[in-house]
Amino acid sequence: MSFRLYIPGPVEVSEETLKAMGTTMIGHRSPEFVVLYQSVQPALQKLFYTQDPVFISTSSAWGVMEGAVRNVVSKGVLNCMSGAFSDKWFDVSKRCGKPAKALSYEWGTAVKPEDVRRELATGDFDAITLIHNETSTGTMNPLEEIMEVVRKFPEVISIVDSVSSFTVLPIEKDCLGIDVLLSGSQKALALPPGMALLTVSARAMARASEVEGRGYYFDFHEFKKNHDKGMTPSTPVISHIYALKQQLANIDKEGLENRYARHRHLNGLVRQWVHSKGLRLFPEEGYESLSLCCVANDGSLDIPAMNQFLRENKNAQMDQGYGKIKGKTFRINNMGNESEETISEYLGFLDEAIDATRSN
Amino acid sequence: MSFRLYIPGPVEVSEETLKAMGTTMIGHRSPEFVVLYQSVQPALQKLFYTQDPVFISTSSAWGVMEGAVRNVVSKGVLNCMSGAFSDKWFDVSKRCGKPAKALSYEWGTAVKPEDVRRELATGDFDAITLIHNETSTGTMNPLEEIMEVVRKFPEVISIVDSVSSFTVLPIEKDCLGIDVLLSGSQKALALPPGMALLTVSARAMARASEVEGRGYYFDFHEFKKNHDKGMTPSTPVISHIYALKQQLANIDKEGLENRYARHRHLNGLVRQWVHSKGLRLFPEEGYESLSLCCVANDGSLDIPAMNQFLRENKNAQMDQGYGKIKGKTFRINNMGNESEETISEYLGFLDEAIDATRSN
Repeated sequence: MSFRLYIPGPVEVSEETLKAMGTTMIGHRSPEFVVLYQSVQPALQKLFYTQDPVFISTSSAWGVMEGAVRNVVSKGVLNCMSGAFSDKWFDVSKRCGKPAKALSYEWGTAVKPEDVRRELATGDFDAITLIHNETSTGTMNPLEEIMEVVRKFPEVISIVDSVSSFTVLPIEKDCLGIDVLLSGSQKALALPPGMALLTVSARAMARASEVEGRGYYFDFHEFKKNHDKGMTPSTPVISHIYALKQQLANIDKEGLENRYARHRHLNGLVRQWVHSKGLRLFPEEGYESLSLCCVANDGSLDIPAMNQFLRENKNAQMDQGYGKIKGKTFRINNMGNESEETISEYLGFLDEAIDATRSN
Repeated sequence: MSFRLYIPGPVEVSEETLKAMGTTMIGHRSPEFVVLYQSVQPALQKLFYTQDPVFISTSSAWGVMEGAVRNVVSKGVLNCMSGAFSDKWFDVSKRCGKPAKALSYEWGTAVKPEDVRRELATGDFDAITLIHNETSTGTMNPLEEIMEVVRKFPEVISIVDSVSSFTVLPIEKDCLGIDVLLSGSQKALALPPGMALLTVSARAMARASEVEGRGYYFDFHEFKKNHDKGMTPSTPVISHIYALKQQLANIDKEGLENRYARHRHLNGLVRQWVHSKGLRLFPEEGYESLSLCCVANDGSLDIPAMNQFLRENKNAQMDQGYGKIKGKTFRINNMGNESEETISEYLGFLDEAIDATRSN
């Protein structure tokens, strides 16, 4: 039994991508693999707006989020926190034995550039972590403004997670001076989970050279050494690279500007629907995500009942909120391959679910 | 362009498994995932001969090989080394900042229990790493005898890699007192690469509690906490779990004893062929692998030319040896789904390749 996924990750994967997942294996040290690996580079560099190599990690995004901290943090890391995932990054940094400080906000509130400036000015930090789009709360942080601040502190290596914003809108890595930009497979790219992508600046590579205890599996220099041969340090998740190649071709066919416009348009449709229901978005005004809408439950919605209704009547998997705001919010995804047709259909499903489950 | 794989990993994957890789996604925090996760547990525990939980890691085996070291090593680790992969484990241990000592042998020589006893008796170690079957040299270490020694040192946590021996022959984890037994997906299990399995004793869990800097992604306690809910710490590689489930059903259908007998029989067929060609196996006598044969090149074979011949005429991908013995050896895989028919056919191909390329 499986349901059509309307959740913000893993998002619904197309038949075409699933078919690519079933492609015959090749040896990961064979010339065929080198061709495959190198064939996805130009498109990845274009999507990340970077001249730096894009590495493929056989892990989910948390692997490289932890790995990045192990690679570049020496003096201390400032973890910007405003939701489940960014909060966890602080915890993970400490578990790696790194000096870490929380720059903490209420969930749904965006990270503010002036706070970043104040913290970095202490001189206590040689790295900062930021989740561009906090999926748990549907909040999009003001990346350009924050990077404008970070660039003023040349000692500070920036690690930015774009798991749920990559290819939803342009994130111009090199222009913004982002040192480590990473993403996963199962959200904006609409691939199955199990692969992460990361691109690392020369500055961050140089920093890594000086940091002890980086290990092997997520070591930036191992990635680079193997990348130069068209390979990965460890046996890679080949099926996902096939699927990536297929999805990159689709993105190219759609055109990047069209893709960004589609996401913005679909996100607008959902916001309109939210307001039409007399509901409001959870995040602080002005920082609402373009990837998904996190809807605040005004108390009139029985979200578990709506979920049950959708599973039973529409074969649809809705989101019911995440972590401590589960039930107080629910999220509607517009990442990946969603279209006006699929979003409109889902909003219709939600109308029915609300009507069927509202107590009054 | 892809070739039929006769290499010892990734091994050839069946159509049925590739089809399972293309199954529709489900949410990894949904009841459907819990059902999937829990459905593979009994078979995994049976295959690992353990009452301990079997964790699923979204990584290749190196991830958990490094992770295991980060979880349990405090005082020092003894790395048993006799080939490319076991040698590397020493390097990886040091890169994790752990005190490590090499117990080093010539490639192709097996690890000797009496040497392990001598080293552990120094009291310098609280952990040991051992690769049961060193894939690079086709050497199988005497696991039972080594574990008999290790069990005499209650302070020492044993970490055993069974990437290329798991399900080839029984490895009775609980009986042998192995603390951490791990495997990958793309060798004996004949799944695509990108997933690792590991099972951890209560002793090793207790040790991990005391070790700092374990991080998050490979933390044993995170695995256990989520396992108890039928989940994984990070977004899992769902496609591979579908494929695992399909392959576990196949193993069950074949019967474990039949599976072991098949591998032993196929391995014997290859050895017979090797001797019939006047060639010999590379490893020390008495320690030849049951998973693959590593054939020593007596100087009469032009291995790159054989490889070229097989690619051009048989659509077959042969192995050409690994690391510093590349060209001086080549390996013939009998893991995974290989049968008398496929092995016999391949040996026929090799006959033709040798005839076509021998210089005299």
